[in-house]
Amino acid sequence: MNDLISECAALLEKVKQKKPLVHHITNYVTVNDCANITLAIGASPVMADAIEEAADIAAIASAVVLNIGTLNNRTVESMLAAGGSANERGIPVIFDPVGAGASAFRNETARRLLSEVRMDVIRGNISEIRSVAGLSSNTKGVDASEADTFENAAQIARELASKRGCVVVITGAVDIISDGARTAEIRNGHSDMSRVTGTGCMCTSLIGSLCGAAGDAFHGAAAAVLCMGVAGELAHEKAGADGSGSFRNAVIDAVSGMDADILKARGKIDEIS
Amino acid sequence: MNDLISECAALLEKVKQKKPLVHHITNYVTVNDCANITLAIGASPVMADAIEEAADIAAIASAVVLNIGTLNNRTVESMLAAGGSANERGIPVIFDPVGAGASAFRNETARRLLSEVRMDVIRGNISEIRSVAGLSSNTKGVDASEADTFENAAQIARELASKRGCVVVITGAVDIISDGARTAEIRNGHSDMSRVTGTGCMCTSLIGSLCGAAGDAFHGAAAAVLCMGVAGELAHEKAGADGSGSFRNAVIDAVSGMDADILKARGKIDEIS
Amino acid sequence: MNDLISECAALLEKVKQKKPLVHHITNYVTVNDCANITLAIGASPVMADAIEEAADIAAIASAVVLNIGTLNNRTVESMLAAGGSANERGIPVIFDPVGAGASAFRNETARRLLSEVRMDVIRGNISEIRSVAGLSSNTKGVDASEADTFENAAQIARELASKRGCVVVITGAVDIISDGARTAEIRNGHSDMSRVTGTGCMCTSLIGSLCGAAGDAFHGAAAAVLCMGVAGELAHEKAGADGSGSFRNAVIDAVSGMDADILKARGKIDEIS
Repeated sequence: MNDLISECAALLEKVKQKKPLVHHITNYVTVNDCANITLAIGASPVMADAIEEAADIAAIASAVVLNIGTLNNRTVESMLAAGGSANERGIPVIFDPVGAGASAFRNETARRLLSEVRMDVIRGNISEIRSVAGLSSNTKGVDASEADTFENAAQIARELASKRGCVVVITGAVDIISDGARTAEIRNGHSDMSRVTGTGCMCTSLIGSLCGAAGDAFHGAAAAVLCMGVAGELAHEKAGADGSGSFRNAVIDAVSGMDADILKARGKIDEIS
Repeated sequence: MNDLISECAALLEKVKQKKPLVHHITNYVTVNDCANITLAIGASPVMADAIEEAADIAAIASAVVLNIGTLNNRTVESMLAAGGSANERGIPVIFDPVGAGASAFRNETARRLLSEVRMDVIRGNISEIRSVAGLSSNTKGVDASEADTFENAAQIARELASKRGCVVVITGAVDIISDGARTAEIRNGHSDMSRVTGTGCMCTSLIGSLCGAAGDAFHGAAAAVLCMGVAGELAHEKAGADGSGSFRNAVIDAVSGMDADILKARGKIDEIS
Repeated sequence: MNDLISECAALLEKVKQKKPLVHHITNYVTVNDCANITLAIGASPVMADAIEEAADIAAIASAVVLNIGTLNNRTVESMLAAGGSANERGIPVIFDPVGAGASAFRNETARRLLSEVRMDVIRGNISEIRSVAGLSSNTKGVDASEADTFENAAQIARELASKRGCVVVITGAVDIISDGARTAEIRNGHSDMSRVTGTGCMCTSLIGSLCGAAGDAFHGAAAAVLCMGVAGELAHEKAGADGSGSFRNAVIDAVSGMDADILKARGKIDEIS
């Protein structure tokens, strides 16, 4: 067992003690799953997207999650307000550029959010991260394009992290977490996760939850991605044969039962640079 | 078995016969659960928040639920229109002041809704009800603050009910229902209910469903809270060990299977004043 | 086994190969179920309702689903833009007139969408389709009215389909699919489906998924309705006794496990004119 996995396991205990409030401005497709997984890991979700209160709610939160899955011009303004409020107070901001690359509006919004808000963590699939990094991207909708291979993913994450001074997470068959200096890869998870909506969004909510308890965003992000990957495996074992409706619930079940021992026994995380 | 539980059991049968239409203007986090639990108890949900139709839909409903979980300036206007339309026609209005106390915007909106709409029932956790009652509140997000003890909850409910001429429900480890003259407490439920999002919102939807069939809002609210509490216990027995994803479905399962006999066998409701 | 069922079974394989992108502008009540059932059948959902991107996202999709369940003036404009963009490119548009007949705003919006967008398929319950067809309707909320009998449903579907040059689907105890020239009826499904929210919306999402892979909207719609009906039966057998929460997941489970053999073994579809 390496140091990184010990760190992740310790953070899991810490989130349950601290119960950080995680403010989400997120899409209406997967918002219920995001709230439930935030509760399952031991944090407390609050979803509030009105411009009149976005900055106020962010100010009392331990982490802010900005997810552009179903963005519109009203909620983009609220994201900017919440992000700015969090930045002023040193509260970590997690950005999920859902569907970046799929439309000019998404690209422009991602660019604007990244320019006006200092993000602590950016999480996306390879297509979304390529788009955010200014590389060619074949984003089609909100799922990663098969044309965007995972080749060089670690390098892309490392460079984007260095450029932006944040942690970059690319989730896929293998997950990459980098803050520019440190890069880790996680070999947990299961392909069933791509058959239900929201596993990416839920992973981002877990990053918010763990970063809301962690002093270090690299460790917070790593612990969250590890929990999600292990939960995907446990859910497959429990409900993979039942179908995707049951699998989805089993993911939340697995997160609600996750503890340091499970993480240590099943986690496959390694620093690769 | 006391009179109150007989009354609740009778109402449960009545809602299945009448199938009241329950108009919700509610948050997008738990709205699916609210619709499903409304169907599960035997009522018919309709969610409609456009200002162009809010008053019209309220006018054909048997109850109106106003829930400010993810309020914004557009939907607040629709809540006012729906509430006013219901008031004109004597249709019961149920108010769920989600997160009252967490931001100035929520406080102001709750104040405005209470000033412009005559509410028949207000349901919240202790932090939210303290906020609505003008008492000091430690609301942090949408979950009750541990700093807001349940001490004097019955008195707070009674006084707020008397002042506003409505039924006040405070849900928690013990649930309180008061219309100022009559006060009941319910000792059902399970702590697992706080590990999934929306159990409060779902309780409010059940209050709407039962009040849509009941002549008396005190009995309607009591029956709804009793159903929710018993459902929480049954769900814990069925799925508590599986995790919070399964527990959530089991709550809806339990409500869909609820009948007068189960309520009479398991309900723990007593008038306390 | 008739030709129609062979056609449906073949389309089921085709959707899994093509993985069509299905752009939804839909309600926030059942949107998660719509996304999950779209993934379950093998297609890829994208929900995007901002006017700034509605036409762009529709342009890269294989089908567009417009569902007015929780319409508002912002999203209606986006529906018009997405529908227009799809029409220009010959991308099929599926219309779900949720609650048509329940308010003047819904009626007017349905009328406007039908007048400005060429729909390839319209799916509703008997009350909604009667309203869209300009017949007397007893719509109360979003569930079919018991006062609107299914008598003459095939004739209503056939006439509306001929008038509009599209496929009309009426779902209920028996499902009718007509393009004016061909009319089929499906005798699958289970009454449990009316005890959970969103089975109509999910059916519409399946129509979008299948029409996104089919050359012929009549076959696409028939295959989708058949899948939904068979899934309802399988879900009842698996989870009917557990309650409506479990049933809902079992529907998605059943769709995720649906294949040509199941469809051929259980499908009850017949051309009736």
